[in-house]
Amino acid sequence: MTPFKLTDELIEEIEHLIDNNDKHALLDLMKDIHYADVAEIIDELNLDEATYLIKLLESKKTSDVLTELDEGIRDRILENLTAKEIADEIRELDTDDAADIISELPDERREEVISYIDDHEHAKDIVELLRYDEDTAGGLMAKELVKVNENWTVLNCIGEMRAQAENVTRVHSIYVVDDNEKLLGRLSLKDLLTASTKSAIKDVYIRKVDYVSVHETAEEVARIMAKYDLEAIPVVDETNRLVGRITIDDIVDVIRDEAERDYNMAAGISGDIEAKDSILKLTKARLPWLLIGTFGGMMAAGIISSFQEGMGDYIILLSFVPLIQATAGNVGVQSSAIVVQGLANDSIDGEIMGRLFKEFLLALVNGGSIAFLVLLISHFGFGTEYLISATIGIAIISVIIIAAIIGTFIPIFLDKKGIDPAVATGPFITTSNDIFGILVYFSIAKLILGF
Amino acid sequence: MTPFKLTDELIEEIEHLIDNNDKHALLDLMKDIHYADVAEIIDELNLDEATYLIKLLESKKTSDVLTELDEGIRDRILENLTAKEIADEIRELDTDDAADIISELPDERREEVISYIDDHEHAKDIVELLRYDEDTAGGLMAKELVKVNENWTVLNCIGEMRAQAENVTRVHSIYVVDDNEKLLGRLSLKDLLTASTKSAIKDVYIRKVDYVSVHETAEEVARIMAKYDLEAIPVVDETNRLVGRITIDDIVDVIRDEAERDYNMAAGISGDIEAKDSILKLTKARLPWLLIGTFGGMMAAGIISSFQEGMGDYIILLSFVPLIQATAGNVGVQSSAIVVQGLANDSIDGEIMGRLFKEFLLALVNGGSIAFLVLLISHFGFGTEYLISATIGIAIISVIIIAAIIGTFIPIFLDKKGIDPAVATGPFITTSNDIFGILVYFSIAKLILGF
Repeated sequence: MTPFKLTDELIEEIEHLIDNNDKHALLDLMKDIHYADVAEIIDELNLDEATYLIKLLESKKTSDVLTELDEGIRDRILENLTAKEIADEIRELDTDDAADIISELPDERREEVISYIDDHEHAKDIVELLRYDEDTAGGLMAKELVKVNENWTVLNCIGEMRAQAENVTRVHSIYVVDDNEKLLGRLSLKDLLTASTKSAIKDVYIRKVDYVSVHETAEEVARIMAKYDLEAIPVVDETNRLVGRITIDDIVDVIRDEAERDYNMAAGISGDIEAKDSILKLTKARLPWLLIGTFGGMMAAGIISSFQEGMGDYIILLSFVPLIQATAGNVGVQSSAIVVQGLANDSIDGEIMGRLFKEFLLALVNGGSIAFLVLLISHFGFGTEYLISATIGIAIISVIIIAAIIGTFIPIFLDKKGIDPAVATGPFITTSNDIFGILVYFSIAKLILGF
Repeated sequence: MTPFKLTDELIEEIEHLIDNNDKHALLDLMKDIHYADVAEIIDELNLDEATYLIKLLESKKTSDVLTELDEGIRDRILENLTAKEIADEIRELDTDDAADIISELPDERREEVISYIDDHEHAKDIVELLRYDEDTAGGLMAKELVKVNENWTVLNCIGEMRAQAENVTRVHSIYVVDDNEKLLGRLSLKDLLTASTKSAIKDVYIRKVDYVSVHETAEEVARIMAKYDLEAIPVVDETNRLVGRITIDDIVDVIRDEAERDYNMAAGISGDIEAKDSILKLTKARLPWLLIGTFGGMMAAGIISSFQEGMGDYIILLSFVPLIQATAGNVGVQSSAIVVQGLANDSIDGEIMGRLFKEFLLALVNGGSIAFLVLLISHFGFGTEYLISATIGIAIISVIIIAAIIGTFIPIFLDKKGIDPAVATGPFITTSNDIFGILVYFSIAKLILGF
């Protein structure tokens, strides 16, 4: 496959055709471009050009393009369309994608758009989906699925399935329900094809089926589907009625978004931020985290100046502050990253004491090696007095141990309190380790050298 | 769905049954436990117990359990099995999973195990897959797929498909090939069912199909499948012959592993590391990164002591070193994290100058706010002389600008050189920013205050 390559020439050609209002050539050019690639092209166009293109292309394609666009760009394009045009664009979409788009509209517009959807069943399904929080199973699911009643025969079932399958892009499983729509089990296509057409469904279906509740978090749904290698999972309401289905492609997005969020959080960036966002949006996402570091730095300055007086000959100790700080920060981030990931994939849960003890041992090993190296370099390289070098060495082991314990304890503690432990990595942990590290360093130095 | 919960009681019960050699009760207990959960149970057992359980359970279940286990544990269990036993366990597996397991065995054992696989086709397919690097499409693909010849009729095709589907767990697409096995297109199940049984395949198939080459990297395959929402993608060799198929569940694992690796790298942890790994393995993954920080810290110490002499009244400047360092580190990590993610999902490629200019503006805004705050706190809070406070403020803006530029430039540079830019985040960028930051700080101070 020659992957699609977004070139400046292509964008120029498209802009040129839009300028000349050459609809025919434009449609011809866009014909073979996948909707995900069209979304990338639209990213590069200005708002008027993008709106022109969206209006020009057939709604079967643009509906998919809209689902692929970044929220910011999509919102601006939708503002340029009438409620009727939006309703036409999303007519072709599955209920989950349609609901995602409508949920971003202002309240009054939302109702207007829905009123223009002529398929009443579709509109009703979308309204139902709008009720759910987007980070839950209800917010992820689509109403499109194939279900059969346990009392039907295989023959009924095949006819009914054909009709339902019309609206379902990919059939992963056929779900079996009772007269009250309660989920009972599932049916494999293979079993259905090999069973006698007269058999009752109740005699051939599989009574074991994985499912999630509408209120389950998106993260937990992703964990279950990835762990059990599921390509689709049915969703039930409080009374166990089958209300929707989540497919693996939506979960791939959840996993990627989650990973991106955790990564950003570890780097001190909050929210869904991309390189191309505005300076204002980027500042909002970055400045608060930098301020944590600023206040930490000011506290550290306070600690240092309080020790500085009367330090006299030992002023050389100040030169090693960056070393102490870098080491404390790095160790803290390492320890917390391991715990945060372990908590995320459920491979450690809550066994605080064991984890702390292991980090303590690890800190002894790592701290010992680093302290020895620092002692050698500062004594032989810098010609620092032996006692001072030894002091720095001892301080560094202590700082590493404390940093490792803080880095391990904070995420586990946050997790127990129901706060996302990913918050703990990054600036938060480095700042607290900076402060504790410097305090421990000077306290030990004062104790040993007695200034 | 009541999620499976791994309790101490369950583990104790299983250990008790193993001790008493109560096979009947054990099989009964394990009957309804999903293979992914059995893998979690085995994680908690000792090696003898784990081996006992693997040998006891039927190979249909244990084969899947083996694919879910961590490599370390799996290797030790496999060492306890004979080549014949291993061959029996993996008989039920798809070729890709079987190849993954066999590839971990020592060379001589590998051949022995393969010689015990009685299905020669299966053995041949596995041997073929063993040739590919595990991080390529060839290493990810399975040989199980459904393919039909363009010259067949729909009727031929349905019969042939039934036979092939026997070996394929989930049919995602039917691929169409010519007499030389070259991939021509695909066939939808819907089209096949609605077409007349006498039509030739060549008249009904879709000539457009996404595919990847065996040598494509796993990351690129993941990117393509996620972008185009594909549930399966065919794999072709150099001559365009259809040689395998990759399914989305394997890609979910690739995406998760990749995200974990990037996250760890940003935190200064190399390799595939988990919380439960040994102290030695954890030290190997963590110590090298800490040493980068140590050497950086020693260099910073050198810079500070060289400025320290003759600093006289301005010794208070040393107190603000942690502030400079924390700010430089945080800004550097933020800038690099945004670039690294942008490069990973292809939303920025190579437009260095634009990125650098944007980061420069952002650094001016963020740096300005922070510098103003620092000036206020250091002057009014610490009672630092106005000129010194202003110096610190000016230095901090400069440091932020330089840190942002280094953080942006290094990942883009590495990417251009073909090195994974994720290496650049974490300790590497914080350390270089520490050194540059401190150098800039004291240089500016010396220039303004003239010591």
